Amino acid sequence: MLINRRTVRIEWGDCDPAGIVYFPRYVEYFDASTAHLFAAAGLPKPEMLKTFKMAGYPMVDLKVRFLIPSSFGDDVVIESSIAEWRRSSFNVTHKLFRGDALAVEGFETRVWTVYDPDRPGGLKSQAVPEEVKARFVVAG
Amino acid sequence: MLINRRTVRIEWGDCDPAGIVYFPRYVEYFDASTAHLFAAAGLPKPEMLKTFKMAGYPMVDLKVRFLIPSSFGDDVVIESSIAEWRRSSFNVTHKLFRGDALAVEGFETRVWTVYDPDRPGGLKSQAVPEEVKARFVVAG
Amino acid sequence: MLINRRTVRIEWGDCDPAGIVYFPRYVEYFDASTAHLFAAAGLPKPEMLKTFKMAGYPMVDLKVRFLIPSSFGDDVVIESSIAEWRRSSFNVTHKLFRGDALAVEGFETRVWTVYDPDRPGGLKSQAVPEEVKARFVVAG
Amino acid sequence: MLINRRTVRIEWGDCDPAGIVYFPRYVEYFDASTAHLFAAAGLPKPEMLKTFKMAGYPMVDLKVRFLIPSSFGDDVVIESSIAEWRRSSFNVTHKLFRGDALAVEGFETRVWTVYDPDRPGGLKSQAVPEEVKARFVVAG
Repeated sequence: MLINRRTVRIEWGDCDPAGIVYFPRYVEYFDASTAHLFAAAGLPKPEMLKTFKMAGYPMVDLKVRFLIPSSFGDDVVIESSIAEWRRSSFNVTHKLFRGDALAVEGFETRVWTVYDPDRPGGLKSQAVPEEVKARFVVAG
Repeated sequence: MLINRRTVRIEWGDCDPAGIVYFPRYVEYFDASTAHLFAAAGLPKPEMLKTFKMAGYPMVDLKVRFLIPSSFGDDVVIESSIAEWRRSSFNVTHKLFRGDALAVEGFETRVWTVYDPDRPGGLKSQAVPEEVKARFVVAG
Repeated sequence: MLINRRTVRIEWGDCDPAGIVYFPRYVEYFDASTAHLFAAAGLPKPEMLKTFKMAGYPMVDLKVRFLIPSSFGDDVVIESSIAEWRRSSFNVTHKLFRGDALAVEGFETRVWTVYDPDRPGGLKSQAVPEEVKARFVVAG
Repeated sequence: MLINRRTVRIEWGDCDPAGIVYFPRYVEYFDASTAHLFAAAGLPKPEMLKTFKMAGYPMVDLKVRFLIPSSFGDDVVIESSIAEWRRSSFNVTHKLFRGDALAVEGFETRVWTVYDPDRPGGLKSQAVPEEVKARFVVAG
């Protein structure tokens, strides 16, 4: 499976009065990391919205474990991959490393969502296109 | 002119490692305060988007003066009003008070913007409807 | 057990290009709701930091279930309570309602954390003071 | 004078229901860009806080002009430089480009701030150290 790695600089504005990352910022880093993972698979989100008439992949279930805090000026590395594809939903795993140490882990369950032609402005889930899944297979 | 006052609780997550409000949060408070001002005039933004087919009132010019810092747990009061209407743009003034002291001042120039029927997805400025301006006049 | 209810206005800036709340904002609402819960128990966070020499109650485990989206202009109600006290950690539950419908649920595990006198700038967990727990008991 | 350039990917979560960058996010990009400018001058903020016993360089005056909107997936380039040093304050200019076009301009006035030894927890302005200014001079 494709794994995407990216480095994130922790900014002053991401940190709280205790001097460590304000935890909802990790959730934002992970959301962006999911977009970067799709982009690395050749599927940048702006194009997916056009090509597949999708509306996004909203979160239905989120779990985050916070093991080690980070502070502004730190460069952390986030490794992201698809943990599982189901019919219309999928799981994304994120591991955030500070140096060699696993610092934060995120588990996202998202749903492939399109605009509902039967209800103006309405949304509905749909099967993830096979050509999307195929992009994440890495030849062995 | 209509003046809207609202109280904002400064949250832990709005503050930075120096223990004071991270300054871009004030800009967010003011943006929300503009929406609350319109709502106080009987023009909630979700309805304006439908009634006037507007797309929003994007910012073109922003000035903020920071006089006194605030910290989490503080309750500050924001006074907002329209400083000037022009044809398709308008100025909003915000004064944020900590107790009796003026702590932050914001000056926004925004443009009344609608979807351009000639360009799908495009936006264009338009004259502010007279009925919108009329809502901000307070009988003397 | 004490339950705190507060109303949150969903702001334009909390919403994403799909027009619904950007999900990390819920995590911020819940974090602020935990602070409001302690304040409702007579324990505002700025005072706790002084009284108990605490450094905060950092998150170690977070779970969020997203059931129904909300949009800007919506007023949602968040109900927060302590689900369980353990020695130095505790669980907080948040239920966010849109009208009568449960829209988002959050489960936080946090650790009572103080400055470590043996390591300048260091933090360590500590037993939650009994007088803190006692504040959340509601006479029957 | 030293000019720092960095590329910022506009993320989904930085954009609003109109599909364009929520304007306070530019103010955050610029704040981070100021930190990157100092880091490029050999003065990473975490080290400055230790070396110079500074508490930060809080904003006292901010001006932003918004010329062209950007959307998620865009890569924008931010050019940052010190426009002027005064005794204890200084101006930073940011130019954000979308392709070749100037899209947003920011002007920050900040104050060099240290902890006040006479008031525990208090802050005061101080002359910017000459060795700091010297770092921004580029040999001609």
